Amino acid sequence: MSTEINNIEIQKATTSKISNVDFDNLSFGKVFSDHMLLGVYKEGKWQAPKVVPYEPITLDPSAKIFHYGQSIFEGLKAYKDANGDTFLFRPLDNWKRLNISAKRLSIPELPEEHFIEGLKALLQVDDEWIPKKDGSSLYIRPFIFASGNGFHASPADEYTFIIATAPSGAYFSGQLKVLIEQTYSRSANGGVGFAKAGGNYAGQFYPTQLAVEKGYQQVIWTDDTTHEYIEEAGAMNIFIRINDTLITGPTSDRILDGITRKSILEIAKSENIPFEVRKISVTEVVEASKNGSLKEMFGAGTAAVISPISAFGYKDTDYDLPKIANSYGERLKKRITDIQTNKSDDSFGWRYKI
Amino acid sequence: MSTEINNIEIQKATTSKISNVDFDNLSFGKVFSDHMLLGVYKEGKWQAPKVVPYEPITLDPSAKIFHYGQSIFEGLKAYKDANGDTFLFRPLDNWKRLNISAKRLSIPELPEEHFIEGLKALLQVDDEWIPKKDGSSLYIRPFIFASGNGFHASPADEYTFIIATAPSGAYFSGQLKVLIEQTYSRSANGGVGFAKAGGNYAGQFYPTQLAVEKGYQQVIWTDDTTHEYIEEAGAMNIFIRINDTLITGPTSDRILDGITRKSILEIAKSENIPFEVRKISVTEVVEASKNGSLKEMFGAGTAAVISPISAFGYKDTDYDLPKIANSYGERLKKRITDIQTNKSDDSFGWRYKI
Ligand SMILES: Cc1ncc(COP(=O)(O)O)c(C=O)c1O
Ligand SMILES: Cc1ncc(COP(=O)(O)O)c(C=O)c1O
Repeated sequence: MSTEINNIEIQKATTSKISNVDFDNLSFGKVFSDHMLLGVYKEGKWQAPKVVPYEPITLDPSAKIFHYGQSIFEGLKAYKDANGDTFLFRPLDNWKRLNISAKRLSIPELPEEHFIEGLKALLQVDDEWIPKKDGSSLYIRPFIFASGNGFHASPADEYTFIIATAPSGAYFSGQLKVLIEQTYSRSANGGVGFAKAGGNYAGQFYPTQLAVEKGYQQVIWTDDTTHEYIEEAGAMNIFIRINDTLITGPTSDRILDGITRKSILEIAKSENIPFEVRKISVTEVVEASKNGSLKEMFGAGTAAVISPISAFGYKDTDYDLPKIANSYGERLKKRITDIQTNKSDDSFGWRYKI
Repeated sequence: MSTEINNIEIQKATTSKISNVDFDNLSFGKVFSDHMLLGVYKEGKWQAPKVVPYEPITLDPSAKIFHYGQSIFEGLKAYKDANGDTFLFRPLDNWKRLNISAKRLSIPELPEEHFIEGLKALLQVDDEWIPKKDGSSLYIRPFIFASGNGFHASPADEYTFIIATAPSGAYFSGQLKVLIEQTYSRSANGGVGFAKAGGNYAGQFYPTQLAVEKGYQQVIWTDDTTHEYIEEAGAMNIFIRINDTLITGPTSDRILDGITRKSILEIAKSENIPFEVRKISVTEVVEASKNGSLKEMFGAGTAAVISPISAFGYKDTDYDLPKIANSYGERLKKRITDIQTNKSDDSFGWRYKI
């Protein structure tokens, strides 16, 4: 039996898994809602996506996703306000970035309405899955992968587009101690670092594992030529506060243009927080730590929101960040989550009501 | 109904697809044999692989392969000699390299017997699929991907290991005209370029597509810092002959340590062909082309064997390679394929009889 919402066909699951979910104790991205949005690119075009039950995918062993890592993804969240209304945060920017990634990975670009109307229909069908508790939200994962077949190392002739959702709590737990990487790299000049390409993430697992064994939770990547300039973390852009100035590196073809990052910069501007977008060297950060001018470091991303960094390691030395009053990180986090959850006005026009 | 070969369980397909295959007109990697080897890593260990019918794989939409590109692969070939005996070429080196890739991608290393005994059993079951015609062979694709679930960007807790095979003809058809890349890059210092990681290949599709639009078939990658040093092609290492010296770049963490490449170097040594393993700059190659000392360029890899390059493009100029007698490429290609197909003795001990 199928119905429609905004021209999107809906095939409802016959039973719901929601009664198994403990909404008071959500981890990140481990339980999945009853439905997903499913679209297919074949015969040279994206076919209309449908909302279908969340269920396994069947692929030929020669499907190119298994061999050549041709995949991209996005990450955003749906929030409930006190009235039970649902909001997204700048979802069109996720759609645009998905297509920026698509182009670099030779994946056909996805029409706006497949993403936006499809997502809206999905969220209406799985409305009950959107957590209401503060600090929890529905993590939304749009992704596209090469489902066409063949061992030739070239783009596929078929792709699958899915949006799956997972009611989720915090991405990090506890203090965030990071290692400034001096051996491994995340991305090359002229590479795919600016894209949310699957392969960018697998490449980080081993260096991160080595860092975890040394007592860190995350790696801060540096440029692959000199390891002297701070780039970003696994799934966060990095902000550094020296005295009262907030600094973040410029985006480039090696760095993801984070939506949280650019929102923070706009908020900083509107609130007259002094900020600079410029290359920042490890030497400068270490010096600032030594002379006491380094006040804060934090990561910024959809999953991690704003995550304060408590210490960083560099060449076998650990540097603690001070505990300070009037933290920029806390202030910006409150400001951004208040906008996301409809607790404050939204002069930027970022909120998107479903 | 299941049987066993060398302790590997065999589940036979009920029907064979072989009568549909035109063995006189094989393309590359488009038809797949009746069986595959299938192994699973779970509960902290690699379970015994089985030979099973070649058939679709079913995965949860949250399987990490779709999101984080955690996959690696290998490529080798099986050859038939005139007596119908089957040979592999240095297969233990493929197993070793698979595990080098596995380590860098945080994938659990695979035991030797799973690879070698599994492959032997598979080739015995699908013996009829191994082409007998000169220039054709059975292309063998071992691969491992993250089949465990979850949106957290971290290694999976389950992996799938498959060996699938495809009777195949030549990888390239016609003349090979290459573009020396000056904008995009394949890999970073400290990255995963030396691994056969899926994501390394998807990242090459777009720049290759741009090169194809300009009339080239392949990109020759250069280092990402200066674009001045020749690295390798999409699935081949690169050799350059200047006067009578054969030159290839050193391997590094950015370049795949090709089995064809190292075999060529050993053959060159044994045949007293002068050779050098050293960095080679684009400037040197262009100069050599201009002054007539550039005699040959060729790519070397399992799929492409030895593929002569007829011209290269660099900064909007095309440079033709001369046609020469006594080509090293031709001589080395004959030598290596004669060893592979049991037409000559094998003083190196590279042939591996099934
Ligand atoms: C590599 C990387 N950097 C930064 C970010 C932060 O981007 P955004 O704020 O859009 O979530 C992410 C996660 O999305 C990421 O994967
Ligand atoms: C990037 C890359 N370089 C070089 C090669 C050649 O390696 P081999 O000779 O072992 O096939 C391959 C293919 O296997 C490859 O993928």
